[in-house]
Amino acid sequence: MIATELPPVSQRVRDLHSQMTLAEKISQLVGYWVDQGDEVVAPMAGEMVSSNSYEAASVNGMGHLTRVYGTRPVDPVERAGWLWAEQRRLRENSRLGIPAIVHEECLTGLAAWKAATFPTPLAWGAAFDPELVERMAGLIGESMRSLGIHQGLAPVLDVIRDARWGRVDECIAEDPYLVGTIGTSYVRGLQSAGVHATLKHFVGYSASQSGRNHAPVHAGPRELEDVLLPPFEMAIRDGGARSVMNSYAEIDGEPVGGTPRYLTDILRTRWGFDGVVVSDYFAVVFLHSMHAVAVDRAAAAGLALTAGIDVELPTGDAFLELADCIANGLTDLVDVDRAVLRVLSQKEELGLLDETFESPPSAVDLDSAEHRAVARQLAEESTVLLTNDGLLPLSATAAGTIAVIGPNADSTDALMGCYSFANHVLAHHPGTELGFEIPTILEAMRVEFPNAALEYARGCEVEGDDRSGIAAAAEAARAAGTAVVVVGDRAGLFGRGTVGEGNDVESLELPGVQRELVDAVVATGARVVVVVLTGRPYVLDWAIGVGAPAAVIQSFFPGEEGATALAAIISGRVAPSGRLPVSMPRSAGAQPYTYLHPILGGPSEVTSVDTTPVFAFGHGLGYSTFTHENLTVSGDVAPGDTVEVTVEVTNSGDRTSTDVVQLYGHDLFASVTRPVAQLLAYQRLTLAPGERVRMTFVVPPARFAMTAASGVRVIEPGDVELWVGPSCAARETEAMLRFSGAEYVLTTADQRLATASVEHVASSV
Amino acid sequence: MIATELPPVSQRVRDLHSQMTLAEKISQLVGYWVDQGDEVVAPMAGEMVSSNSYEAASVNGMGHLTRVYGTRPVDPVERAGWLWAEQRRLRENSRLGIPAIVHEECLTGLAAWKAATFPTPLAWGAAFDPELVERMAGLIGESMRSLGIHQGLAPVLDVIRDARWGRVDECIAEDPYLVGTIGTSYVRGLQSAGVHATLKHFVGYSASQSGRNHAPVHAGPRELEDVLLPPFEMAIRDGGARSVMNSYAEIDGEPVGGTPRYLTDILRTRWGFDGVVVSDYFAVVFLHSMHAVAVDRAAAAGLALTAGIDVELPTGDAFLELADCIANGLTDLVDVDRAVLRVLSQKEELGLLDETFESPPSAVDLDSAEHRAVARQLAEESTVLLTNDGLLPLSATAAGTIAVIGPNADSTDALMGCYSFANHVLAHHPGTELGFEIPTILEAMRVEFPNAALEYARGCEVEGDDRSGIAAAAEAARAAGTAVVVVGDRAGLFGRGTVGEGNDVESLELPGVQRELVDAVVATGARVVVVVLTGRPYVLDWAIGVGAPAAVIQSFFPGEEGATALAAIISGRVAPSGRLPVSMPRSAGAQPYTYLHPILGGPSEVTSVDTTPVFAFGHGLGYSTFTHENLTVSGDVAPGDTVEVTVEVTNSGDRTSTDVVQLYGHDLFASVTRPVAQLLAYQRLTLAPGERVRMTFVVPPARFAMTAASGVRVIEPGDVELWVGPSCAARETEAMLRFSGAEYVLTTADQRLATASVEHVASSV
Repeated sequence: MIATELPPVSQRVRDLHSQMTLAEKISQLVGYWVDQGDEVVAPMAGEMVSSNSYEAASVNGMGHLTRVYGTRPVDPVERAGWLWAEQRRLRENSRLGIPAIVHEECLTGLAAWKAATFPTPLAWGAAFDPELVERMAGLIGESMRSLGIHQGLAPVLDVIRDARWGRVDECIAEDPYLVGTIGTSYVRGLQSAGVHATLKHFVGYSASQSGRNHAPVHAGPRELEDVLLPPFEMAIRDGGARSVMNSYAEIDGEPVGGTPRYLTDILRTRWGFDGVVVSDYFAVVFLHSMHAVAVDRAAAAGLALTAGIDVELPTGDAFLELADCIANGLTDLVDVDRAVLRVLSQKEELGLLDETFESPPSAVDLDSAEHRAVARQLAEESTVLLTNDGLLPLSATAAGTIAVIGPNADSTDALMGCYSFANHVLAHHPGTELGFEIPTILEAMRVEFPNAALEYARGCEVEGDDRSGIAAAAEAARAAGTAVVVVGDRAGLFGRGTVGEGNDVESLELPGVQRELVDAVVATGARVVVVVLTGRPYVLDWAIGVGAPAAVIQSFFPGEEGATALAAIISGRVAPSGRLPVSMPRSAGAQPYTYLHPILGGPSEVTSVDTTPVFAFGHGLGYSTFTHENLTVSGDVAPGDTVEVTVEVTNSGDRTSTDVVQLYGHDLFASVTRPVAQLLAYQRLTLAPGERVRMTFVVPPARFAMTAASGVRVIEPGDVELWVGPSCAARETEAMLRFSGAEYVLTTADQRLATASVEHVASSV
Repeated sequence: MIATELPPVSQRVRDLHSQMTLAEKISQLVGYWVDQGDEVVAPMAGEMVSSNSYEAASVNGMGHLTRVYGTRPVDPVERAGWLWAEQRRLRENSRLGIPAIVHEECLTGLAAWKAATFPTPLAWGAAFDPELVERMAGLIGESMRSLGIHQGLAPVLDVIRDARWGRVDECIAEDPYLVGTIGTSYVRGLQSAGVHATLKHFVGYSASQSGRNHAPVHAGPRELEDVLLPPFEMAIRDGGARSVMNSYAEIDGEPVGGTPRYLTDILRTRWGFDGVVVSDYFAVVFLHSMHAVAVDRAAAAGLALTAGIDVELPTGDAFLELADCIANGLTDLVDVDRAVLRVLSQKEELGLLDETFESPPSAVDLDSAEHRAVARQLAEESTVLLTNDGLLPLSATAAGTIAVIGPNADSTDALMGCYSFANHVLAHHPGTELGFEIPTILEAMRVEFPNAALEYARGCEVEGDDRSGIAAAAEAARAAGTAVVVVGDRAGLFGRGTVGEGNDVESLELPGVQRELVDAVVATGARVVVVVLTGRPYVLDWAIGVGAPAAVIQSFFPGEEGATALAAIISGRVAPSGRLPVSMPRSAGAQPYTYLHPILGGPSEVTSVDTTPVFAFGHGLGYSTFTHENLTVSGDVAPGDTVEVTVEVTNSGDRTSTDVVQLYGHDLFASVTRPVAQLLAYQRLTLAPGERVRMTFVVPPARFAMTAASGVRVIEPGDVELWVGPSCAARETEAMLRFSGAEYVLTTADQRLATASVEHVASSV
């Protein structure tokens, strides 16, 4: 069903709309990327219409201004002055005086020069801390609002399905509930500052064939309903997200950008979304050039608009032909009107219809102490200690020599993801100052270990096959006796870098000769800590077994305070508490893989390939130990009931430390196949040595639901195994939940996919 | 919709059915695997009920006897004597006197001792010769019928989607039309001998996650309709196949064996199939143990029967509980009755209700000269010459020394696929005589090159990392100056071997150290022919570019006459004419891949990974050259019209040779995305040197159809690029076909997915 009715709007918006010419309406549905006198750093920039005619183009008003701050190093205050003037010009020189929405990238922080760079989404997932992510997004939103930016193109809610995909670097996790809860927190944070979040990429982008960017997606409707859609549903129903961006994907041959079933039926009719759908950059044109479901750009515009795309970004390459479409009967005027009313309502909601743009900011601090503190805390909480034979923590008072080795040891770039602006600055504008200080791991180690002598040896580069430095690095390790080896990825775009948008891979071995560097250093007999800084999970089979390093730390691009956090964890000043938000795979040839597989996706006697990950989803060590005991569940309940689960958690080690308590379930028999493990709830929990608490998870019905073959979301009677343990693959304490009675069809209220509530009931035992 | 009505049957069947007790009915719906005093060579044999109670089990009659001949080396005539006696016992000792259907594996020839072993299905695909496959299947059917076998568990119509899957070895091709035409020919051949073909595995098996056996299938309804279902539809509508076997797959969470949409709605309601659906071995039990959609075996039985499985194979592990199911109200008696009527009708159709089993055969020839001739011709036609710098053909009169090298050079096992019985005999009963002579390539070379001295060096094994023989092999090549290196796979089951059922892989490099053997031999400077004998396409990037061998031949397990055929092609006595039925891939990490991808699946500026195959679908050289010119098409036609396409083909070389003329199309714009290349028609064509003919393809509407988003199969107006060339990726002559007018919805008559007709119009130019 296509919603042809016009959306309910205020009288003011209705009046404004009633005065508009068709040209003025269409202008509200497009963005404009103003030439900044530099190359445009964007995929497919070649698709873009010329940006030399802004004044002419804006005579009828303008829907969006595209990336005003984010594509080159320009002083934010100076740029804000320009922006305020432009907005005033729109108010004064266009007939109806409607300012433009300013949108910007902001995934790991505002993409503006001198703005803070927070950890990447995989790190948010690893922290299992929605509240902290909400604080982070709040800070990002405040920075944006202070610069006149109204909409941020984040968060990315694509559920990881294949580690080969380069954009895994922008994703939160492999589990839709973790993605949904963290993503919803991001939305709440950003929007609390008055900036509209944009959920992307709706939907299916991450499930592409062989993990390639923009490749066809093979997925049926149940996979969409149970895995790919829920994070978006949560962020809209629970988080109130105000904007959605379509995905470039084609699912089973239907490009999302041209398919009303996704952009209208599911999003608006089912979920009640009343915000604005923007196109991913060039996605409308791609309906013609990449999907070939439209014979030209005009047809693509009509198709996208009818399907439910309201605004074409970054520019109006196709939508500017909508007038011709209407003249030729390809598109109905009502489709234009509907989109215009949504955009005007968004502008009203953002306060844009009243803003006068008199006072541009004269000073901003986009990287305050509070930014730094949140960035550091998130980096600390997201660091995953994969293995440790006892070497860690080194002591901060350690004397003697530590060899610090590896291509990522003395690099700020190594701390940032593909959508981190500072990373783009470095990649695209070599020689540019960042505008602020980001310590490298080597620098942070020097501060953290004042009594130690640090010997640095690069060893090799992230990419390429130059082995000439490996011997010297190994010798440095041998001489020192203790070594910290920092390897991993270099994020970038489209062939620049090893991960990030467009940087898909056929192999999941560490890039270049870094594996050889690790092997050579370990072979010296030195005590070795390997720190892996990456934007995707790699094959770390060398991290376990004979000849393994003493300890291995996985950090997903931890941002501007990442080095400080890592040094603090190595010294033991901070204990690691991150957990894997994604399975660490066996090989590229075993992809795609997800821990959410039914029995068939696991090891079996009918296949010679065991895709069991090297490290399971949820795995992560600390410097203390925790025990989980006496899992109890409320007993037999009816499908549709809220379920209370309690578990006793004890800090059985000797230092205050933080656990991530993970509740998993397995629905034993159902009318369709079910995953052998599924995260039902989680909670970070800090306990003193010896402290024991009883924790209660209050799990709402939706967490037990599945989409039946009928397409309806239901809970069926039957048994569900529950367990708590140190990862999805390890059961430390178990209980059986029985749903007795009739099948339960979820109500609209149930469909709020709320976070499982958690109550801590401390007990003295 | 589930067809609950009872099928129309003869008066005789109705009468028989009306006399049956429930126990007698259920007995007709199960197989029995009679203990042959040896291990049962089958996957999941542990799932099987004891086979020690045949007499008791058969007191109520018996639906099927399972694999009477095929699981150990037993003299066929002796075994036939036993079988005739058993059938007489069923006639005489069971109350209604109904004999059992005897089914057997027969993919590459009857799975009986001393029976011919034909080339594997990939070789049938490579030959592009449906008529020859029909002859082969006719011979197989005759052998089966002579031994009292009524149903063969072949052909496999799974369309290849991922080269990592071990059962690619049993598949015909990557293109559904090629699979459908070749598979239909197999059905016609087998059934012409009075043996019912069984289409397997219906449906989706080959599209499993990461190419693993039994893994979940991620596919939407359009992929099913346009790729995975058509071969089955062709074999039923065009080939009249009488039986279908369910696939083990679960598609989007729904196990096919328990899903009426596949087994009843599509198969019977839409396609009009009125034969019998048998379960794949243990698949009914798997609904409980592997898919967990049934809480126990009884529930699995009810689910499968209701969905549309009529007969449980190999034994009644679940269906024998149907009486309890009915007593408990889990299953309706009408479901049992429907299945029983189908089985009885099948037995009537097979003549079983009249057979008296008086005269078992006293002699059979399962490997006659005619078998040998067909096996040899198919092996010859299916050999694909990938590269040739002019070294080939060697001359049959060549003198001097030829080094014959490699683990597959002197092995009969290397010529056979996973479902070739002789291969099983060798693998499971070491020391057993085959019962007939199969020359190895070394032996065939000795015959083919009587004047040459052949030096044999094994070099290495197919599997393992023993490099100790490589140096000697290289030295033999260097000394000889000319070398034939034979490498590849060893087919087997479940961990025994490198390809075959259960032998999935994470890498697509040649197994073991064979690549190193090839490199070492080529590095000597000798003129090297590499022969690759495999059951799947491997990464042969070393076959092109600097340092490549002089010539590379790909042979997909060519059967008992394969060595003779290969020697003849090497000598030039026979010219190669095979074409790749599957893309030769880039890497395991680039899987899955299919040439039938839309624009998105190809190389693009938005991904760093180019999955373009090393050799494209349809590629294959000969010893002559062909030109294709002046492609013409009947001009503007209405969607739904038959389209005539003509092309001029010239043998531009100097010897009589055979071309496979391949017509491809690309529907430029459509309402859903379309493959950038799709095989529309093909024809083998033998021409004398200099001979030129005009060939006409008469392409029926269904070849241009696609499934629209609505789920309906249509032809839309618009332009279709047509071309003929040496592979899907090379356009030698092009034409544009324009469909003008309204969209055309295919009629039931159109839905016959008939082979594109071909007319040769020889012309003297």
